[in-house]
Amino acid sequence: MQQKIINPQDLAFQLYELHDVERLLSFERYSEHSRETFQAALDLALNVAAEEFAPHARLVDEEEPRFENGRVEMRPEVKQALGVLRETGLMAAGQDYERGGMQLPAAVAQLCVGMLKGANVGTQAYAGLTIAAANLIMVQGSEEQQTRFAEPMMAGRFFGTMCLTEPHAGSSLGDLRTRAEPQPDGTYRLSGNKIFISAGDHELSENIIHMVLARLPDAPPGVRGISLFLVPKILVNDDGSLGERNDVSLAGLIHKMGYRGTTSTMLNFGENGGAVGYLVGEANNGLAAMFHMMNEARIGVGLGSVMLGYTGYLHALDYARERRQGRAVGEKDPVAPQVPLIRHGDVRRMLLAQKAYVEGGLALCLQGAMLVDEKKFADTEAQRSLAAGLLDLLTPVIKSWPSRYCLEANSLSIQVHGGYGYTREYPVEQFYRDNRLNPIHEGTDGIQGVDLLGRKVSTAGGRFYKALMERIEITINEGRQDPRLTESADRLEQAVTAIMSATDVINAEKSKGNKEKALANATLYLNAFGHVVVGWLWLRQGLKAIAGLGGKGEQSPAFYEGKIKACDYFARYELPGVITTAELLKTIDTTTLDILEEQF
Amino acid sequence: MQQKIINPQDLAFQLYELHDVERLLSFERYSEHSRETFQAALDLALNVAAEEFAPHARLVDEEEPRFENGRVEMRPEVKQALGVLRETGLMAAGQDYERGGMQLPAAVAQLCVGMLKGANVGTQAYAGLTIAAANLIMVQGSEEQQTRFAEPMMAGRFFGTMCLTEPHAGSSLGDLRTRAEPQPDGTYRLSGNKIFISAGDHELSENIIHMVLARLPDAPPGVRGISLFLVPKILVNDDGSLGERNDVSLAGLIHKMGYRGTTSTMLNFGENGGAVGYLVGEANNGLAAMFHMMNEARIGVGLGSVMLGYTGYLHALDYARERRQGRAVGEKDPVAPQVPLIRHGDVRRMLLAQKAYVEGGLALCLQGAMLVDEKKFADTEAQRSLAAGLLDLLTPVIKSWPSRYCLEANSLSIQVHGGYGYTREYPVEQFYRDNRLNPIHEGTDGIQGVDLLGRKVSTAGGRFYKALMERIEITINEGRQDPRLTESADRLEQAVTAIMSATDVINAEKSKGNKEKALANATLYLNAFGHVVVGWLWLRQGLKAIAGLGGKGEQSPAFYEGKIKACDYFARYELPGVITTAELLKTIDTTTLDILEEQF
Repeated sequence: MQQKIINPQDLAFQLYELHDVERLLSFERYSEHSRETFQAALDLALNVAAEEFAPHARLVDEEEPRFENGRVEMRPEVKQALGVLRETGLMAAGQDYERGGMQLPAAVAQLCVGMLKGANVGTQAYAGLTIAAANLIMVQGSEEQQTRFAEPMMAGRFFGTMCLTEPHAGSSLGDLRTRAEPQPDGTYRLSGNKIFISAGDHELSENIIHMVLARLPDAPPGVRGISLFLVPKILVNDDGSLGERNDVSLAGLIHKMGYRGTTSTMLNFGENGGAVGYLVGEANNGLAAMFHMMNEARIGVGLGSVMLGYTGYLHALDYARERRQGRAVGEKDPVAPQVPLIRHGDVRRMLLAQKAYVEGGLALCLQGAMLVDEKKFADTEAQRSLAAGLLDLLTPVIKSWPSRYCLEANSLSIQVHGGYGYTREYPVEQFYRDNRLNPIHEGTDGIQGVDLLGRKVSTAGGRFYKALMERIEITINEGRQDPRLTESADRLEQAVTAIMSATDVINAEKSKGNKEKALANATLYLNAFGHVVVGWLWLRQGLKAIAGLGGKGEQSPAFYEGKIKACDYFARYELPGVITTAELLKTIDTTTLDILEEQF
Repeated sequence: MQQKIINPQDLAFQLYELHDVERLLSFERYSEHSRETFQAALDLALNVAAEEFAPHARLVDEEEPRFENGRVEMRPEVKQALGVLRETGLMAAGQDYERGGMQLPAAVAQLCVGMLKGANVGTQAYAGLTIAAANLIMVQGSEEQQTRFAEPMMAGRFFGTMCLTEPHAGSSLGDLRTRAEPQPDGTYRLSGNKIFISAGDHELSENIIHMVLARLPDAPPGVRGISLFLVPKILVNDDGSLGERNDVSLAGLIHKMGYRGTTSTMLNFGENGGAVGYLVGEANNGLAAMFHMMNEARIGVGLGSVMLGYTGYLHALDYARERRQGRAVGEKDPVAPQVPLIRHGDVRRMLLAQKAYVEGGLALCLQGAMLVDEKKFADTEAQRSLAAGLLDLLTPVIKSWPSRYCLEANSLSIQVHGGYGYTREYPVEQFYRDNRLNPIHEGTDGIQGVDLLGRKVSTAGGRFYKALMERIEITINEGRQDPRLTESADRLEQAVTAIMSATDVINAEKSKGNKEKALANATLYLNAFGHVVVGWLWLRQGLKAIAGLGGKGEQSPAFYEGKIKACDYFARYELPGVITTAELLKTIDTTTLDILEEQF
């Protein structure tokens, strides 16, 4: 394997066998596509990732961007790589043909960016954030905003950011204070300070388009008084040419543990009177507008975690096959040749855990991406609404599960490397550092847990939650038909039963008005729920692998056997923990609430 | 709390109430000591840690040692801090009075170094390795070696290293190739390459004493042919003055993810004909000699993990009390003041988990240290032999449990800090990076698991394993007497029963000769076994807290309440996982062995 970003067999299996992305070809939107065009985009992205992004991943970690003379200096390889990416047109992979896009399905478009994430997450972020900001304008912005701002972004000429966090308002977005004063000409003047703005300043593009959350003077307090504004770094004239510098200034860079290639900035808006901004969508509806595209952004975060875990796994696998250390259990001859690490049971366990996490995580993210397309383009309103509900339900899981378990995969890939894995001479320690961001940004694990348990499982009277559990039940019944999957199906059934039972108890507690108690262990619920969903996706992979072994697939028999064994692994080693957690959840335990502040 | 290294109440509780270190005063060796002299040493160490070590911890991470002009350049603060430490005499804290030591018990001496680890693990390592190497010489070396080399080390004039690993021989020590040729004068000439030698070169001390594993020409292959040699960087004349430079050269530095303040070196021995070395202990008995002091070294690794987790916890606790973010569940007023993070259930859960891990880990390491003293100085041979056996049994747990769960504590302390925790402006990300070394060095988790399950639980027909389980049973019965601890006692009983049952099944499998199958999940066994031991120590802490609340202790009621709640937490949130793991272990599952190399 030359590149260590993704296993091409797994990619093909997941797209064309597990998720059957080709069924999207029946949608009008994708009628000009084919598996070949999907694959061409993916091959292009993988090539750019391996050739242009991966080679300088360590370099931008070691020589991170610097704040010098009021501007950001960074390694020239970043601009070079992003320039090549721009030329490919992949920054508009998911956009309409008429906007210069490739009009690819979300699963394919997300994976194209995913390749870049696995190769070099720091450089990728400039493109990834631009794609997300452009999407936001395409969904929420006016026609003029789309033409003047989003189109140059999709073409890679302008880059974009998301400006949410302020020094005193992180998870508590409702407390943000940046103000937007309306002007007679219909524009606004923004003033305030933002922090942790990724890609907030650089010299990589002609312009930077900031998507900024702020308050109008008469806005109600809290989250209902937040509006979304588009604030360019450089004003754009009516003819699209660049005008004056806007009143947005870089106050400093933040230095991170990982993800170092991406500038994390403090930005001041309106230090000299007010930054010109344009309202996007309706006034006081900014958070909803932002969240309208958050599902896709959160799939992006989850996929980023997966791809960092995935590349770490492939590096560990390669190392375990090459590196010889020790001897088989029971070998008495001390001069027998040392065996490859992969012969050791404990190393194999660590590799299997990584495989289960990263391939399971990939299946999860692609499931989300398929729902994005179904939600938008499925034939009937009923199908679209069901897909939208399932996507909403799964979003906190897609955001958080990979960011926890694929980070654990990165830790295991270090462990497989032994002392070498701890050195910066090998890449796995960087993946671990890079990935540690993902449980924090775009909504911490704690926020996702409350979102899932406090809202999503109960949306529409629990309709989508029940629909998901029914789908899982169908898979379990299918799994029971094959002797090689019966055990996994049974174990998944037990886990599903446990989590459903816990959900019922917690819902009853919520309906008694004891919300704090009911949600006290929402993060543990989130992890267990995620395990059930990934267990389901592993059982589905097991079913497709059995079909593949029976001649209904394109991959090698060894590959399919590996899938079945990873399915076994997940069912035997991971799913039983769900039952343990569910038992705790069912007690509505308040240990964590009972301890008083001064007792720590 | 000014310093954030350790909670003084917890320190006093663990030493004087939980482990009753004062009972060691009845040993002849400690007859001149008192609680006051113990406390004086600890206060001195804490003061040096806080004043001299902590202030430059970030600095040596950012400006790590460099290899320039054939020598190691580093920040001057390192030498300054180690100089102050040397003046305190603490580097000989555990050594005999007649050697210039303080003759303190292991628990106190270990904690003195532990303070330095929590403050600045990178600078501490130069001292910690010197203490370990001096201990080794004191146990295994000749009288002359002790006087000529160990004494200047204990005085802090010479520093020391442990040279085990070679590029092709890490965990597989039996494969090391460094050769030692005997000379007519009774010395040896060593030649070979060592890697990952911490503190292997620097300008911090007058000399560096390398403890080197190597082979004699006629040595049998494997671990039975390894001898231990003392190889000074600079030869030492008969009168103790420094002579010529020995044939040991620095080939390069290794750059690590964390622990950056400590040089990690590649050393070449004998490039110019052979490095002068002196045999320590018997020929071909080097590994046993090295392991004779490994118990103490491994307590040191475990304690290092604990102290990194502990300082991270104290930082997170402080931050959670100061930082205001969001509002209580159910607060509808969006302009109500934001509440401190610690009011949020999920934050409190993360703090409680950290408390359970780090205070539990500290209790574990101190338990080990108490056994070190009992093993050496208890009144009867039976007591000494029992203590030695228990220490051997617990050593893999003490080495590995903190390195796993206190690393998790460090991850949680980042999470409590949110985005700030991921930045290098806060210290918690460094603790996380520093601590990631601990599951790797001094025997990986995988090695510790095989040591525990493959050997230690069966030593002497399982005598020490049974003795430990009996001690745990006694505590369980005591716990059952108090209504506040009944649940925890019951849960511990269930966990103990599960792990004992799994042990029996695995031992039966071993006795059938299926060693590979029996040991396939040794690492999982190690984690679960560790949880049982720490669960026991938490129940003991709960008992002491109840006694304290009843007037038999010196700490505050709030402190004791916190201990009882952390005991509850460990029993409810952590111990049930032991049963889940034990269920898996009892099946002698071979999933990880069944998957073939090509199926990954």
